[in-house]
Amino acid sequence: MQTQPVGGWLDDLASGSSTPGGGAAAAMNAAVGAALISMVCNLTIGRPKYAAYEAELTAALKNAEELRGKALELAADDAVAFAAVIAAYQLPKGTDADKRARTAAIQTALVGAAEVPLRTAELAAEVVRLSRAVLPGANVNVVSDVAVAASSARAALDAAVVNVEVNLAALTDEEQRAALRGRLAAPLAAAAEADAVVAEVRERIAK
Amino acid sequence: MQTQPVGGWLDDLASGSSTPGGGAAAAMNAAVGAALISMVCNLTIGRPKYAAYEAELTAALKNAEELRGKALELAADDAVAFAAVIAAYQLPKGTDADKRARTAAIQTALVGAAEVPLRTAELAAEVVRLSRAVLPGANVNVVSDVAVAASSARAALDAAVVNVEVNLAALTDEEQRAALRGRLAAPLAAAAEADAVVAEVRERIAK
Repeated sequence: MQTQPVGGWLDDLASGSSTPGGGAAAAMNAAVGAALISMVCNLTIGRPKYAAYEAELTAALKNAEELRGKALELAADDAVAFAAVIAAYQLPKGTDADKRARTAAIQTALVGAAEVPLRTAELAAEVVRLSRAVLPGANVNVVSDVAVAASSARAALDAAVVNVEVNLAALTDEEQRAALRGRLAAPLAAAAEADAVVAEVRERIAK
Repeated sequence: MQTQPVGGWLDDLASGSSTPGGGAAAAMNAAVGAALISMVCNLTIGRPKYAAYEAELTAALKNAEELRGKALELAADDAVAFAAVIAAYQLPKGTDADKRARTAAIQTALVGAAEVPLRTAELAAEVVRLSRAVLPGANVNVVSDVAVAASSARAALDAAVVNVEVNLAALTDEEQRAALRGRLAAPLAAAAEADAVVAEVRERIAK
């Protein structure tokens, strides 16, 4: 994906192949959000007017760069996890032993397929938190980009949550399902945070 | 952008150059949403189970493909409009005539710079509408991708609105400002529509 032209990646996303799909799209939205946080930091760090925020923005930049790299890895992981689910469904089901092995393989693959968007949701929540962290000290000329970063991360979050839920729906182990679903609560809380960042930016612009 | 590697485009977005910035990011989010609508259509059209929705999904696919192409054009237009604003601010202001010419040029450039995200917001609203249109007849295996499309388009919409507002804030012509702001109302209404699509998908998955 990293080396693929933007137009070609979008063509693949649009095609009748299941991957790249919603998982990669969510990861891309998170990467876009992280990249904009980096831009805001890069356009603020070193300017005397914002010297008081220098340490905070330098830390945010480092963090945003890492999150962007990880988001692109998650896009790739998503395709692998999806392939594992498909492969499990294609296992033989001739004998009872086959059937049991196949069911177990499907369940294991579904946990893996839920794990990737869960990590995407967690990553997107971190991007939202970064958008809030950089907002007070962001160069006023790019404050609108902080809102764009927050809304892109929020889209990643919303998408990742749906992608987790769709995998959990087919998971029969109640305990594992509850554990995975429980891990969604923290990233879900970041959606309201993202909206608050967008609202604050709009207020600042309107002044 | 189309021919640029994904990783390189994200590097440019993250860099200390103002373009590509939030405008291109919003356009990219809209393109991702449109691409996912195409994928859902491509994975549904031709399947006997969904024959009743064939005409609707075929029309949606054509529409989504057009919107994706236009979104990428808007990303490029955004950089051009931004460059025009910067160029206008750099005009000479030595004489009173210079100053008047410069002020007029800035105002004209700001209208252009507001126009691009306004069109992005309108386009994103169309992607949201498409997500709602394809939802009833979408292949059940990719119904989660309809939600991802809606949330990506919503991010594009939110971002584009902030990008319009930031340009309007510097516009002194009250009448023109009101006219441009008035055009935001329709796309803004699509945000709730996007949330409704995501909620409906989550309900369907939970069943």
